[in-house]
Amino acid sequence: MLNETMRAAVLDRPFSIEVKQVPIPLPKPDEALIKVYCIGVCGSDVHYYEHGKIGRYKVKQPIILGHELAGEVISVGDAVTNVTVGDRVAVEPGITCGRCEYCKSGRYNLCPDVVFMATPPVDGAWAEYVAVRSDFLYKLPDEMSYEEGALLEPLSVGFHAMRRARVHPNDRVLILGLGPIGLLALEAAKLYGVTEIYGSDVVPFRRNLALKAGASGVFNPMEDDIQANLERLTDKKGIDVIIETSGNARAIADTVHLAKRGGRIVFVGLPSTDAIPLDIPTLVDSELDVYGIFRYANTYPAAIQALNKANQDIRHVITHKYSLNEIKEAVEVARTQKETSIKVMIYPQGADNL
Amino acid sequence: MLNETMRAAVLDRPFSIEVKQVPIPLPKPDEALIKVYCIGVCGSDVHYYEHGKIGRYKVKQPIILGHELAGEVISVGDAVTNVTVGDRVAVEPGITCGRCEYCKSGRYNLCPDVVFMATPPVDGAWAEYVAVRSDFLYKLPDEMSYEEGALLEPLSVGFHAMRRARVHPNDRVLILGLGPIGLLALEAAKLYGVTEIYGSDVVPFRRNLALKAGASGVFNPMEDDIQANLERLTDKKGIDVIIETSGNARAIADTVHLAKRGGRIVFVGLPSTDAIPLDIPTLVDSELDVYGIFRYANTYPAAIQALNKANQDIRHVITHKYSLNEIKEAVEVARTQKETSIKVMIYPQGADNL
Amino acid sequence: MLNETMRAAVLDRPFSIEVKQVPIPLPKPDEALIKVYCIGVCGSDVHYYEHGKIGRYKVKQPIILGHELAGEVISVGDAVTNVTVGDRVAVEPGITCGRCEYCKSGRYNLCPDVVFMATPPVDGAWAEYVAVRSDFLYKLPDEMSYEEGALLEPLSVGFHAMRRARVHPNDRVLILGLGPIGLLALEAAKLYGVTEIYGSDVVPFRRNLALKAGASGVFNPMEDDIQANLERLTDKKGIDVIIETSGNARAIADTVHLAKRGGRIVFVGLPSTDAIPLDIPTLVDSELDVYGIFRYANTYPAAIQALNKANQDIRHVITHKYSLNEIKEAVEVARTQKETSIKVMIYPQGADNL
Amino acid sequence: MLNETMRAAVLDRPFSIEVKQVPIPLPKPDEALIKVYCIGVCGSDVHYYEHGKIGRYKVKQPIILGHELAGEVISVGDAVTNVTVGDRVAVEPGITCGRCEYCKSGRYNLCPDVVFMATPPVDGAWAEYVAVRSDFLYKLPDEMSYEEGALLEPLSVGFHAMRRARVHPNDRVLILGLGPIGLLALEAAKLYGVTEIYGSDVVPFRRNLALKAGASGVFNPMEDDIQANLERLTDKKGIDVIIETSGNARAIADTVHLAKRGGRIVFVGLPSTDAIPLDIPTLVDSELDVYGIFRYANTYPAAIQALNKANQDIRHVITHKYSLNEIKEAVEVARTQKETSIKVMIYPQGADNL
Repeated sequence: MLNETMRAAVLDRPFSIEVKQVPIPLPKPDEALIKVYCIGVCGSDVHYYEHGKIGRYKVKQPIILGHELAGEVISVGDAVTNVTVGDRVAVEPGITCGRCEYCKSGRYNLCPDVVFMATPPVDGAWAEYVAVRSDFLYKLPDEMSYEEGALLEPLSVGFHAMRRARVHPNDRVLILGLGPIGLLALEAAKLYGVTEIYGSDVVPFRRNLALKAGASGVFNPMEDDIQANLERLTDKKGIDVIIETSGNARAIADTVHLAKRGGRIVFVGLPSTDAIPLDIPTLVDSELDVYGIFRYANTYPAAIQALNKANQDIRHVITHKYSLNEIKEAVEVARTQKETSIKVMIYPQGADNL
Repeated sequence: MLNETMRAAVLDRPFSIEVKQVPIPLPKPDEALIKVYCIGVCGSDVHYYEHGKIGRYKVKQPIILGHELAGEVISVGDAVTNVTVGDRVAVEPGITCGRCEYCKSGRYNLCPDVVFMATPPVDGAWAEYVAVRSDFLYKLPDEMSYEEGALLEPLSVGFHAMRRARVHPNDRVLILGLGPIGLLALEAAKLYGVTEIYGSDVVPFRRNLALKAGASGVFNPMEDDIQANLERLTDKKGIDVIIETSGNARAIADTVHLAKRGGRIVFVGLPSTDAIPLDIPTLVDSELDVYGIFRYANTYPAAIQALNKANQDIRHVITHKYSLNEIKEAVEVARTQKETSIKVMIYPQGADNL
Repeated sequence: MLNETMRAAVLDRPFSIEVKQVPIPLPKPDEALIKVYCIGVCGSDVHYYEHGKIGRYKVKQPIILGHELAGEVISVGDAVTNVTVGDRVAVEPGITCGRCEYCKSGRYNLCPDVVFMATPPVDGAWAEYVAVRSDFLYKLPDEMSYEEGALLEPLSVGFHAMRRARVHPNDRVLILGLGPIGLLALEAAKLYGVTEIYGSDVVPFRRNLALKAGASGVFNPMEDDIQANLERLTDKKGIDVIIETSGNARAIADTVHLAKRGGRIVFVGLPSTDAIPLDIPTLVDSELDVYGIFRYANTYPAAIQALNKANQDIRHVITHKYSLNEIKEAVEVARTQKETSIKVMIYPQGADNL
Repeated sequence: MLNETMRAAVLDRPFSIEVKQVPIPLPKPDEALIKVYCIGVCGSDVHYYEHGKIGRYKVKQPIILGHELAGEVISVGDAVTNVTVGDRVAVEPGITCGRCEYCKSGRYNLCPDVVFMATPPVDGAWAEYVAVRSDFLYKLPDEMSYEEGALLEPLSVGFHAMRRARVHPNDRVLILGLGPIGLLALEAAKLYGVTEIYGSDVVPFRRNLALKAGASGVFNPMEDDIQANLERLTDKKGIDVIIETSGNARAIADTVHLAKRGGRIVFVGLPSTDAIPLDIPTLVDSELDVYGIFRYANTYPAAIQALNKANQDIRHVITHKYSLNEIKEAVEVARTQKETSIKVMIYPQGADNL
């Protein structure tokens, strides 16, 4: 029924990415075949493109990248019951074992046997089609676009951060780093009813986007005295929760001084060096909580539900749109134009086809 | 400086309420004197007015009722540091000991030595002035009206319910009973980012208010098959959290059948009879959580923060406005016109003076 | 290698149970074949034996009962990695899907697609062998006997109750009903470091066992004023946590009066009638938490770890021991001798063979 | 009735401590006068003795140190109701305001207005008598000695750590630093039912005490490969909770590598330098929780209850006993003999008088 091959963006080695004809994946009995309509370019995709590896994960054979996606169900395996052909779905890109202690206790993001899209040697979905285990497919409400569906992946990180930090609508939140993850953490905080959110980033474009999205104040960490500003803006009440997404060493070190006593800090951003000097006496004296965040779990249905009727459009983080054939340009924009780009999106069926 | 007497509504015995001249209270060193601008009529006030008692609390001597209020700080005792003359404040009406196990562990609403306004023999604040320990005064932001300040009291019950039930923005919430507490629980759920809230009440006027306030659906428990409706409306996903505010025996009994497996039920409403038959096998089989709610704790600053910038007006629950001199009429409306009234408000300085 | 048939106790219809030769199950690739050394008689087994059904679950075809077991791994499927031949293991009897919202969020006991041993039409393990999916097998430490391994199942209910009620070592705990579940809830409370545990049961033998196991006091609900006793014994500090295991209507109703303000109640026992009158005003006024308990999740490895070095022998609940051929007598003892029996154990390989 | 003066150990300036006659404090209406029977020497006492300051707290005028104590109620103010003359009590040494956001929400250890004994300029209790606000006095059960009562203070730190880290009996716990706080954290873990506790310290005497107290294994961080040892000893299951009490920079840095994925780390020990390099990528990748611990809250009644019947003697940490007149020697032992001393105790009424 389907053509036997499809177009997919294949990375052979650093900087060498090309759209090729590859076989359309055959869904297993518990999988569905998804026609990919919208898929993001993530920082990790760019990193593989540029360096050919992230930590212990190395591109040793040609790989299809991309893991932030939404699409349409084209066919389903015999054992699939939760979706049917024609369903519009978001795809959660990490397939977990369901049987280890982490999976069984609700923290499946820590599953040691996870098979995660676009993490070598696992292929991702910068392609026309992808086969996915059906329990990681989530129907999109009619009101929700494929673009929003694809954005659920980076939004999930922020949503997971809100849960880990037990954010309440009365918390004052500070987000360090206003790239895609930071800006979507801001959206997650808004979904959690937070009314006072501050942001910090060196890039003016990003600060402006945060302000437009409702931030109560934004800072340039190179110029502003953030602590003094927050003391004034919060009327000395202080910051309850900090979401660190920049990975910047100074930002990480600052967190313990920017949180109020008894406050909570979430580390999302990965610094390029491992050892960041942290002021432990202050962490102890202020009795802070610090939470590491690794991906997310149980966020897709939750974020769909929270977002759908929330009268809150998260698509403002999409700054660039490309067809699959323009993949090289798309990745280069994401790699080089950090002053003006946030989220670059690929539309494998064409942008007119949403 | 102040006149030595003030007007106050004094209840001598059931149905006998009259505005009298009484001494203006003298604030102790840790108290402030508050000029009352707006104060609500609560169901408990009406109950004392009608029956002269609630449970073990009996009106044995003339009493001033009223405990949902906001006003202006007129003078402060020597030890007061958190508010100053001229501050606009909301008043939390239960003064707790600060030293018992409940106070020390953050559940001061369970303090056995609480002194609660308008609970015999403690006077309330249907009066021109009231003296209050300053740590139970909370400054109102400029953008927040006295009316909203007074509504913080009943809103606090809903806010406390959200906390006790650990509500998240992805929860589907059902509120049984859409009187003042139910409608403000709906507002609290909205503050918590909840996007799908259902309500149930026998009174059409109340159901309409809930719809106007954003409810996704409302039911008449005398006519509608709520379970079937919810199954359809939630696409069989079910209700995560039920807030029971009606006190109706049937509504209470229904909760365990209306909650999804693993769901949470909050009991706020007090039935007129003690023993309500509850389906324990279903409670066990569905592994439900049930939470009793007694007043609230730590809600005032939280609700102010959550509400202030939330673009959400809670004043739609105010259906009737009276001067202090019209107190009898105000209480009678609250007592008899349940089909058309939600929250009746008293303005001791006049409604034009807000 | 193995004989092709094994002995198994087959229930054809109520009261008709007989040891027959049946095929030894063939383990699937992700299963292991277990040689059953010790397996308990549960109340639900007795109920099926007596009534042929529990609620909607009906014995329509011959069934092997029994689901509290430990044994030795005899062979493993190709995909099994966590256990090997010769391992001594406890068996968790409910096999869950791993893919639904409950499984993914850590509450797999609520999985709607669970396949639970000895729940019609699923066979249990009153047999020489049983095949089980390997992720539900848990290695027993050398120090832990098969009997303890089999008791992990009913102990898990108590362990789950401790978690759901967030029990701390400083809590005062009251257990209503001192049958197998109640006595093992007592052991679970001890594992949680609780030092003050009270028990209540009408049967003197059970009360004595509770005292021997370390209960601080036991009551006969037919004779003792439990509330007055607890007030005296706790020096008016009250009971923090109540574990209701009896299913008795009066015991269930009493819970809300026996818990202190802010206390927690866990309902485990299933009453024979659905609607139990509960004093809702007290539940609200005391701001109680009530938790239903349905089976357990993630308890096996936890209970093994907590129990193994705890210097706490739970085997005192085993009052009767039988070979598989004596199954009829074993079930009859459990059914009829409630005054003197707690846990009846079956040893399919003989009791000498442990 | 009482002599008007008492003996007290007064520190004038570093190294100058002397027993002098000072006025017996007069209890206020809400205070009780305590005859001090047993009081510990804390690291902070030694630090003030040696350096005259800790951070911003400086000894500017003569001060009485000591804040870990138990004694007998000698007289009570008019407003005191919870204790009476003759009661044996433990004293919680930080008197909090009861009215700030931290006090009201159950985290009174973060109260900015706390008045803490032996923190300049507030006097402590190395004296015959001390006056204390009665809500910080806790009756000791008959079975509990004054020595145990005094040890409740450092035990409270461990108890608070257990709560903050949500320790369960199935957790594997590692304690870094086996001084008084570390060894009492070990006792707290035992109270929480933990059965597998490891310890690490450079001092052999301390490691031996930990082993005697039931540690499953101890390590010398200068010689042992702790990670490899733990992998072997826990059968690769890993450490759930780490309690860092040493303040050693390397120990602090090691925590994130010694915790399993999803593990929890508690920082108690204060390093001498502020900035400790911490491996943030591992903290993020392993999704760790890190909790700072500042003193404790609501631990005294809890620890008394947990300890009283626990068949667990915590007094093994007392290695040296002195009368009040020997205070100089007592402090010097604590200061200089870290190889052989853990907790040095002062008995102001004589050690024979317990």
